[in-house]
Amino acid sequence: MKTINIGILGYGVVGAGVAKLLKQKKQLLESRIGAVLNLKTIADIDITTDRGVELGTTALVSDATVIIDDPEIDIIVETIGGETIAKEFILKALENKKHVVTANKALLASYGNDLVKTARKNLVDLAFEASCGGCMPIIKSLRESLVANDIKAMSAILNGTCNYILTKISKDGSEFEDALKDAQQLGYAEAEPSLDIDGFDTAHKLAILNSLAHGMEINLKDIHVEGIRTITPKDIEFAKEFGYTIKLLAIGKIHENHVEARVHPTMIPDSNPLSHVDSSMNAIVIDADATGQAMLYGHGAGMMPTASAVLSDVADIARNIISGTKRRVPILGYPEDNIKPIPILPMDELYTRYYLRFEAQDHPGVLAKISGILGENNISIKSVHQKGRKTNGNVPIVMITHIAKEASVQDALIKISKIDSVVGSPVVIRIEETVQE
Amino acid sequence: MKTINIGILGYGVVGAGVAKLLKQKKQLLESRIGAVLNLKTIADIDITTDRGVELGTTALVSDATVIIDDPEIDIIVETIGGETIAKEFILKALENKKHVVTANKALLASYGNDLVKTARKNLVDLAFEASCGGCMPIIKSLRESLVANDIKAMSAILNGTCNYILTKISKDGSEFEDALKDAQQLGYAEAEPSLDIDGFDTAHKLAILNSLAHGMEINLKDIHVEGIRTITPKDIEFAKEFGYTIKLLAIGKIHENHVEARVHPTMIPDSNPLSHVDSSMNAIVIDADATGQAMLYGHGAGMMPTASAVLSDVADIARNIISGTKRRVPILGYPEDNIKPIPILPMDELYTRYYLRFEAQDHPGVLAKISGILGENNISIKSVHQKGRKTNGNVPIVMITHIAKEASVQDALIKISKIDSVVGSPVVIRIEETVQE
Repeated sequence: MKTINIGILGYGVVGAGVAKLLKQKKQLLESRIGAVLNLKTIADIDITTDRGVELGTTALVSDATVIIDDPEIDIIVETIGGETIAKEFILKALENKKHVVTANKALLASYGNDLVKTARKNLVDLAFEASCGGCMPIIKSLRESLVANDIKAMSAILNGTCNYILTKISKDGSEFEDALKDAQQLGYAEAEPSLDIDGFDTAHKLAILNSLAHGMEINLKDIHVEGIRTITPKDIEFAKEFGYTIKLLAIGKIHENHVEARVHPTMIPDSNPLSHVDSSMNAIVIDADATGQAMLYGHGAGMMPTASAVLSDVADIARNIISGTKRRVPILGYPEDNIKPIPILPMDELYTRYYLRFEAQDHPGVLAKISGILGENNISIKSVHQKGRKTNGNVPIVMITHIAKEASVQDALIKISKIDSVVGSPVVIRIEETVQE
Repeated sequence: MKTINIGILGYGVVGAGVAKLLKQKKQLLESRIGAVLNLKTIADIDITTDRGVELGTTALVSDATVIIDDPEIDIIVETIGGETIAKEFILKALENKKHVVTANKALLASYGNDLVKTARKNLVDLAFEASCGGCMPIIKSLRESLVANDIKAMSAILNGTCNYILTKISKDGSEFEDALKDAQQLGYAEAEPSLDIDGFDTAHKLAILNSLAHGMEINLKDIHVEGIRTITPKDIEFAKEFGYTIKLLAIGKIHENHVEARVHPTMIPDSNPLSHVDSSMNAIVIDADATGQAMLYGHGAGMMPTASAVLSDVADIARNIISGTKRRVPILGYPEDNIKPIPILPMDELYTRYYLRFEAQDHPGVLAKISGILGENNISIKSVHQKGRKTNGNVPIVMITHIAKEASVQDALIKISKIDSVVGSPVVIRIEETVQE
């Protein structure tokens, strides 16, 4: 039986998960793939901490070049994360004709196009199933299963931290800060939570998925990103009254000459299967022209789900090696020559529906003033709730609009916030209706 | 660019869908795969009816051997269905060294082991993503994405007809016969609906999925199968009161020396993501040891979703051909030599929880008699509802049991049905609790 040698760069949680699963499933993998997947070497600057993995003959070294320059190693798994040293190592590994498997979404979102070019130049594979949606086979589905489809739209919950926090606010009526603290205590959120809760992690993943879905270059910088810091129990409660749930969604849609790519808190109706995706679970709804609506759901993070996704890539590459082939499926789903830059729609030009909440002193004529400004901005209102629930003497005015233009809504909000009786900043949350099938 | 020639056997709904999608997506497929997928010939006994597909240079013939014996054809798509002529054609095609793609779950469930052996002998591929779950990538997920996992359990809604009918009964309170008529009028059910509503179609799919999940020979005959004919609005209503939904589930679980494989109406709690899968949609929840719980959801049938799944297989084989390889992934996920027969647990030996409903004349002591018999059979009761809702003068007694043995429950039901005051046959529906994670 052929032996395929593997090296792991980075022995943190994910690296240890990959090592553990490779060891635990040695027999299963041999039985299924027909090759020995031998974990030859792991490199990490910390070679003393016990990660609870029985390493056996696997070497643990502090110098990554021991792996990158080892002529016997076929596949390198990068689990360092971040955009500096990981990038340098991956580029060197590719130049050394190693196939690379990574879960590094931040790196792929920012430098993916360069990495793909380097992999192409060196005729090796670069695989990243674990970068988006953890154990859900999103990448494989887009690259392979949906090959005969044009992807019309994707909407996804791709960050377990945000979904946990929003679920907590929704179920317990917690304030954001308390829900965040709870998530931190349970290990769902980092001490420095910005990457997750401000939406950047979700945007990284959307940049990758948009590329795979539409054969476009990876483009992170033009994605509109908003996080969940401003979400209050009050808005979640109003959302429920209208039949909506609030989720942090990554939304990608194709239009004739551009794509939409945006990350923001979104109200979705109960008929949208994403509305039932709670706690730290992730899910993606893909609307493709032949399949119609489909959803993948699962653990988007965690040691073993991530390791499972990494090993699905390792197995794919191993199967290529024993079949005497490589680069069997293009890295981004389309051969590099067919990948085009497709512009992302500027946010101002978005048309969608909006939930608006204003706090106003209970003076006569406030509603008329607000409605007047919205009307002048061509924003027509589908429903209004003005209930007597006073907060600090103010009354909330809640509106759902028909489809309106983002620039007009933002302009109207500025004008409305200048009305004397309107207190504080208006709240705006975009609404995404389910595609009815 | 290399040309790969394709022939389709059977020009019904699915065959026409495949032809249509191959034509519509010619450019997309070329762009993604880097080869021309040329639909050379379609064979059907009816060569006159217009299927609305612009055939161009594709020949439509009445003799299947024109395709099977064509040395230029690389891949044959079988969309005839059934177990007679389709089997003969597939075996001939495999003997002629053609790769075969089929959606024929009935054939695979009954003769899959033979087909796999023939494909192996002739060193060709046999692919069947469209056989289970339509456009959902169940087969690819089990064969490839979950390669480093032991699959602990699967539970799935795999028949859109049954799910539509159960949803209709649940939402509208319709009786089964009316819901079936409605499904027939909408084209969700056949005029002869037994294959679907009696659970056989679901069992075919479970036989295939169990094989892929556990590396076991396909075994249809030992799967316990019950359909949905006996489901009443009354039981659905009681289920709701207990927080359950009733779905026709395929359940597959691995134990130390055997598997569970059963198809029957099942009560699941609202926390089970399958409980939100309504109308004709399909879904599968896979509980694997590394990934934890994951779900795939989508259209399980229909012309274009099925065609999409067929073309994902065609593309996989085309990519093998242009990579100079074949049989890159074993047909059943494990190399044939590693596939074992694993016994299916006899239904009598199942342990699970039960919903029981008895109709009884409102006489004193009935409940005591029923409880006594259950106690003698080691069935302990978790909750009892005996409400005053009389039907024809009878009172329904509804019970939820703790985990009990199937043989004991069936024995108890026979004894209980002999009690004078108990009217008609007791209703028994098994309960499946969600794996809590």
